[in-house]
Amino acid sequence: MPSSLASRPIGVFDSGIGGLTVTRALMERLPFEDIVYFGDTARVPYGVKSIATIEQFGQQIVDFMLQQEVKLLVIACNTIAAVAANKLRERVSVPVLDVIGAGAANAVAASRNGAIGVIATPTTVNSNAYARGVHALRADARVFSQACPLLVPLVEEGWLDHPVTRMTVQEYLKPVLAEGIDTLILGCTHYPLLKPLLAQEVGNAIKLVDSAVSVAEQVAATLADLELATPSRDEADYRYYVTDIPLRFQTTGERFLGRSLRHLEMVHL
Amino acid sequence: MPSSLASRPIGVFDSGIGGLTVTRALMERLPFEDIVYFGDTARVPYGVKSIATIEQFGQQIVDFMLQQEVKLLVIACNTIAAVAANKLRERVSVPVLDVIGAGAANAVAASRNGAIGVIATPTTVNSNAYARGVHALRADARVFSQACPLLVPLVEEGWLDHPVTRMTVQEYLKPVLAEGIDTLILGCTHYPLLKPLLAQEVGNAIKLVDSAVSVAEQVAATLADLELATPSRDEADYRYYVTDIPLRFQTTGERFLGRSLRHLEMVHL
Repeated sequence: MPSSLASRPIGVFDSGIGGLTVTRALMERLPFEDIVYFGDTARVPYGVKSIATIEQFGQQIVDFMLQQEVKLLVIACNTIAAVAANKLRERVSVPVLDVIGAGAANAVAASRNGAIGVIATPTTVNSNAYARGVHALRADARVFSQACPLLVPLVEEGWLDHPVTRMTVQEYLKPVLAEGIDTLILGCTHYPLLKPLLAQEVGNAIKLVDSAVSVAEQVAATLADLELATPSRDEADYRYYVTDIPLRFQTTGERFLGRSLRHLEMVHL
Repeated sequence: MPSSLASRPIGVFDSGIGGLTVTRALMERLPFEDIVYFGDTARVPYGVKSIATIEQFGQQIVDFMLQQEVKLLVIACNTIAAVAANKLRERVSVPVLDVIGAGAANAVAASRNGAIGVIATPTTVNSNAYARGVHALRADARVFSQACPLLVPLVEEGWLDHPVTRMTVQEYLKPVLAEGIDTLILGCTHYPLLKPLLAQEVGNAIKLVDSAVSVAEQVAATLADLELATPSRDEADYRYYVTDIPLRFQTTGERFLGRSLRHLEMVHL
């Protein structure tokens, strides 16, 4: 029996568990909305795969999410958003928001001098998607991107405030900081966990834009515009689907989510 | 038309490109043998996946390799060898060698005091496969294992002699070195690229055991025993199959292989 559109859950998906930082931001911004999360943990990470493979995997995930009868989809994976968002939008009739569109909009609003830095995975950087998103909103902006392939494994190791992580961040940020940016987009859903360390390294003069928080704001605005906000004031229902449950998954997942991770189910696409 | 058994290629497979260090060791040890390499680059890394998923993926790869009519199989992935080698051996009639069996044997031969360290991915360490392999050969050995999840991404970033890598290695090795080991197994096919840095950090008193070189020796001995060494003295034929060709694949692959990477083909399992 199909429920009314507004009562349906929000769908959030990612290549792995990084999207749980987006889920957390959504829970905090929209505490009555049900959420279905999907993480492709058997095939993570996507950031080192080819565009054709990412498109194919993304389409499989979207098909699964539509079976869950979601009212809105959030692409919580920067890599998928960067290379496959348009293709995926063609397949669905519900609104599809993504971390890149939201992060770019927020950065343009935050920047005074128009010099915006982006740190992300190699695939996201090579896609140039943040630069396109920023330039669509502010044509004279200058965007400086830096691929940071080591930050995801450092976060997953839990070295959130470790000398190795600090030295790695310093090395990656050096060329970006030399460009005089006043805004830095955290272009990967793992990076919000490094926000305290990153804030220390960039100093007070540079604003950090967290894509997870940015997209949660956009979801709230979109639901209000389309009159799709849930009428429920009951405790929200959260379900988590993953393609694999690896070692330490629970611990790492809960670190990302900031709360306990229940109703977890493994599925095959 | 099936070729004579001895003229068939050796099959080498890995979750990704790390097994190219094993391929390289085989090329150097057995320069006339044809080699078929398979890397599951669309689903790499395996070291963070569950055992059930690794078994399933491993079986798909073995089925593909048998279609290539190989005369001997080398599991060049420590993670697959650690958790799925026995299951995979049940499926095939050709000899199946693996980096763990070879590395353990070589370490037992090298160690004087029986205190052996192992550095590897979390899944390999948790499987306890190296400890089992060592104890099967020397019951009074003491094995000290350390999971090093950051070393694979550091190698793939190319930071082979970088202060961040050195600091990370020092952190990981500290507890193992405190146990008075005289032998250290490099229990991941990425680690041979860190051999110079690791040798500096452990000093002269500790012998490094490279599983890639160890398994190449075992392959040579097995082919001789079974009279399966190729009679050919023509230039060997090398073919590489991968499930994805990501960014920078060629560069990274050639760094692992130590030579140019030609005859590369993408396949779907």
